[in-house]
Amino acid sequence: MRYRKIPDETIRRLPIYLRGLLFSLEQEQQSLSSRSLAEFLGVNSWQIRKDFSYFGDFGTRGVGYDTKKLIKQINKILKLDVVHKAALVGIGNLGSAVLAYPGFKIYNFDIAAAFDINPKKIGRKTGKIKIEDVSNIRLLKKRKIYIGIITVPRNEAQCTADALVKAGVKGILNFAPCYITVPKKIKVITIDMAMDLARLPYYMPAS
Amino acid sequence: MRYRKIPDETIRRLPIYLRGLLFSLEQEQQSLSSRSLAEFLGVNSWQIRKDFSYFGDFGTRGVGYDTKKLIKQINKILKLDVVHKAALVGIGNLGSAVLAYPGFKIYNFDIAAAFDINPKKIGRKTGKIKIEDVSNIRLLKKRKIYIGIITVPRNEAQCTADALVKAGVKGILNFAPCYITVPKKIKVITIDMAMDLARLPYYMPAS
Repeated sequence: MRYRKIPDETIRRLPIYLRGLLFSLEQEQQSLSSRSLAEFLGVNSWQIRKDFSYFGDFGTRGVGYDTKKLIKQINKILKLDVVHKAALVGIGNLGSAVLAYPGFKIYNFDIAAAFDINPKKIGRKTGKIKIEDVSNIRLLKKRKIYIGIITVPRNEAQCTADALVKAGVKGILNFAPCYITVPKKIKVITIDMAMDLARLPYYMPAS
Repeated sequence: MRYRKIPDETIRRLPIYLRGLLFSLEQEQQSLSSRSLAEFLGVNSWQIRKDFSYFGDFGTRGVGYDTKKLIKQINKILKLDVVHKAALVGIGNLGSAVLAYPGFKIYNFDIAAAFDINPKKIGRKTGKIKIEDVSNIRLLKKRKIYIGIITVPRNEAQCTADALVKAGVKGILNFAPCYITVPKKIKVITIDMAMDLARLPYYMPAS
């Protein structure tokens, strides 16, 4: 398998395919053609075939992909075949929504720690997690947590990222509406909740 | 300009470019090469040039793109050159976070109405918006609101979508972790907050 030189765009699409495949498996579809996967996801089937071609031979022509096998392969490529523990910083509205969101488990993520600066929130339990003081962030490495999720206000995002990096975090999902700077070896993905809305009017029929 | 047969993937990337351009303008960069835009956004410069090529000639070779002009053109393509009013349904943690999120304004969206079923929330003011009873959804057309944002729990997502469609909404941004079914002419974009996290481990150095 060639794991090198895979376009970022392909890596970005793999979780989309994964979600479609997991949904198909739920519907007890044991195999799936690139065309039906494409139709379900609203993407091009040639794109799917091209993306998969980076990783070797996934399907048999005319028969389609083995759903379970393909899920396993994509999970392996994305390194989602092991559980990743994540720490959430900032338990306001958005942080609470992230904590309650059931979708992280699907991808093998376990939000194992939650931090806030507000003394009123510290010690409170949400689900199975007790909110801790942000000073505990420094202990993340000991707890084998290498992913940080930032849901603090914009003006606290950079110092939160700094604390996470200092604690040995290797990847950050940033929900704060700003760019954050980290050392090159750390991967940051900034989510813009409004960006998906920005392509909606294009597809809407004229008023 | 050829507005037809533009790949969905190109349309999906335009808001990403737009955000990068708006950020450059903030930094007072009047012009920008595809290469520097690509570097900033972490995408391929040939991809940017190819995407822009669908819409005619945007830049001058060697000089780069005129930032302001390009922003205006992308806004026009995405139909973001007019203000779009949106209605938010479900004012729990996520809905409150969406209401407080400053990023929608950047793309010319105005969350002009907010709905909930909880009598305790109805009438409460958040920012400049008063939370209304969901029964008021039926008046959306009169208020010229054609976009709905769904932040209700999973089991209420479909009936919320039905109510929005019945009220004349033409596009829906769905944050609920489930697929919803709508008539074909209505565009739905479902956001999976965990999906962006799913490509993070791929880029992280081994533990």
